[in-house]
Amino acid sequence: MSTLEAPPDNCKRPADGAGDGDVKKAKLDEDAHSSHPKWTSLNSFKFVKVLREDPQAKSVCIHATSQLKRAADQSDGDAQSAEADAIILLEKTAFDTTDSGISTLLAPDTSLQQHFNNDIYGTYDSLLAPSLNNVKTVIIFPASAKHMEKYASHESHVIYESPEDYQSITLPYIQSSSFEMQWIYNILEKKKESEFIVYEDPDPEKGFVLVPDLKWDRKSLDTLYLSAIVHKHGIKSLRDLTPEHLPLLKNILNTGLEAIEKEYGVPKSKLRAYFHYQPSYYHLHVHFNQVKFTAPGSNVVGAHNLSDVIDNIKLYPDYYQKRTIPFLCKTNAKLYKCYEAAGKI
Amino acid sequence: MSTLEAPPDNCKRPADGAGDGDVKKAKLDEDAHSSHPKWTSLNSFKFVKVLREDPQAKSVCIHATSQLKRAADQSDGDAQSAEADAIILLEKTAFDTTDSGISTLLAPDTSLQQHFNNDIYGTYDSLLAPSLNNVKTVIIFPASAKHMEKYASHESHVIYESPEDYQSITLPYIQSSSFEMQWIYNILEKKKESEFIVYEDPDPEKGFVLVPDLKWDRKSLDTLYLSAIVHKHGIKSLRDLTPEHLPLLKNILNTGLEAIEKEYGVPKSKLRAYFHYQPSYYHLHVHFNQVKFTAPGSNVVGAHNLSDVIDNIKLYPDYYQKRTIPFLCKTNAKLYKCYEAAGKI
Repeated sequence: MSTLEAPPDNCKRPADGAGDGDVKKAKLDEDAHSSHPKWTSLNSFKFVKVLREDPQAKSVCIHATSQLKRAADQSDGDAQSAEADAIILLEKTAFDTTDSGISTLLAPDTSLQQHFNNDIYGTYDSLLAPSLNNVKTVIIFPASAKHMEKYASHESHVIYESPEDYQSITLPYIQSSSFEMQWIYNILEKKKESEFIVYEDPDPEKGFVLVPDLKWDRKSLDTLYLSAIVHKHGIKSLRDLTPEHLPLLKNILNTGLEAIEKEYGVPKSKLRAYFHYQPSYYHLHVHFNQVKFTAPGSNVVGAHNLSDVIDNIKLYPDYYQKRTIPFLCKTNAKLYKCYEAAGKI
Repeated sequence: MSTLEAPPDNCKRPADGAGDGDVKKAKLDEDAHSSHPKWTSLNSFKFVKVLREDPQAKSVCIHATSQLKRAADQSDGDAQSAEADAIILLEKTAFDTTDSGISTLLAPDTSLQQHFNNDIYGTYDSLLAPSLNNVKTVIIFPASAKHMEKYASHESHVIYESPEDYQSITLPYIQSSSFEMQWIYNILEKKKESEFIVYEDPDPEKGFVLVPDLKWDRKSLDTLYLSAIVHKHGIKSLRDLTPEHLPLLKNILNTGLEAIEKEYGVPKSKLRAYFHYQPSYYHLHVHFNQVKFTAPGSNVVGAHNLSDVIDNIKLYPDYYQKRTIPFLCKTNAKLYKCYEAAGKI
């Protein structure tokens, strides 16, 4: 998955949609919009600071400034108003691993600079022709303060949510936050995105709709990402799950995996199905990935394997009401502030 | 962490050590060793196939062939024997996010090619000077069949290990495999690596030794990786854990996190501590990372958060003896063959 997208915890559709809407509303005047020129070099930007970086994905998000076209046209000399903020997202690209892609790499213009050589092992820098080593780039210009906030790095901390914390902090937070759920109901009622439904079990108690996640390009099986959204309303998260939900959970696991295997040819044994805790929206849904794909939010604090959840409830019916459940929370999140206000951080 | 290293499940020290030793023994004759020339271009290699790729880390491992120097010198015309196998590992580098690093990027010779422009958003390819966009390269030459096996991609599958499967398949596998444990005892007895010990509690029941993991460069706090190895012998894995181990587990969690915070300044709330299941060696040990670092093996199938483990045992004393525990297993692993032989796959 591309790290040029919004941060993982901003991936939920309503927030992203709403966020982008807000951001678009917050943009500068109409003249300014047409100020996104067709740049031919990054030289047009002045570096301000690094907003976010991911050394594993080899990506970086930069705050820079550039001249607004209008000001340049009018040459009214007001240099102060002629500058606007820009966000530049850079991400190195994966290798083209087709035969022709690799053969093109092993070419005379890929020069090698040796660092050292020990027995049969040698380390080098390969210097590739720029066209074989392009860097995916997104430029947002002019960028608003909301863009800066959205793309800035916010550190995640582990919060250990006891059953009492859930009742006194998390649940009131969920109830007081007016999460927009209409987009989910639109999918379930097939008012929107019905053309993308991969599988549906219409049963009101144990049924669900299986749709590709927005983060998936719907092509690369390596990064396969689907979500099952349950038809039943009112199950907020993992915390609500009890033995009465076992038929629903087993149905999602078995029928969901079968539907993915049938549709995409990926065997069940190469798939993982899991919940996020906290979820990005409080209507029960399950994430499906290839096991070799380290999707954002699939790590050990925050992700809960569906087969484990089923087993836990089968063995210990009150498991999700009794357990302390740790979760990751960014310092700018509203829930983080709630835990801070309660003196828990 | 660099994906140019050995695959995650090959990271255990004895296997890696032994593996490399074998591999070195398996190498061609002395003349051939000196055949690792100082290449100046990748053009010297003929592409055979892609062994492994990681589109997220932007790395690829290639099987290629090249001429042995000796044959070229002697020009004896035996082209067949003059070719040898090579493994080429290529990995794109993270951006230099220092001020000077970014300023160098925003330079006239970074040209931009626009894909499309929508309102304030534009997408481009950046074409960087090769020296600003080098690709880390390791060349193994001549490479043996063992190298090919080591670097080849083997698909992982999920195996659901019931308590009965553990008794009838996994446990006999552990008991019949003569895992080399001397290297662990050497660390615990301070015969080896004692200079690297970050913290030690010498208590024979609840004590442990905290050491940097071999995968960590011991510098970048973003990729911080330490392991706590328990002093007590005979606890093979998660499966063996019962309430009698709670003092040990709590000690590792609390004292381990404190020691890391004290040594590296990373607060406890930014750290995760977890077990692997299956572990790479059957002497109980715990992995510690920064939460923002997606270490190999920290995903939802295979990783077990230490605070969850403690809570599970506190609430349900026989949790790890009763639960079905899924794990990821590569198709070339001995344990995979055991499950296959038992008709479980």
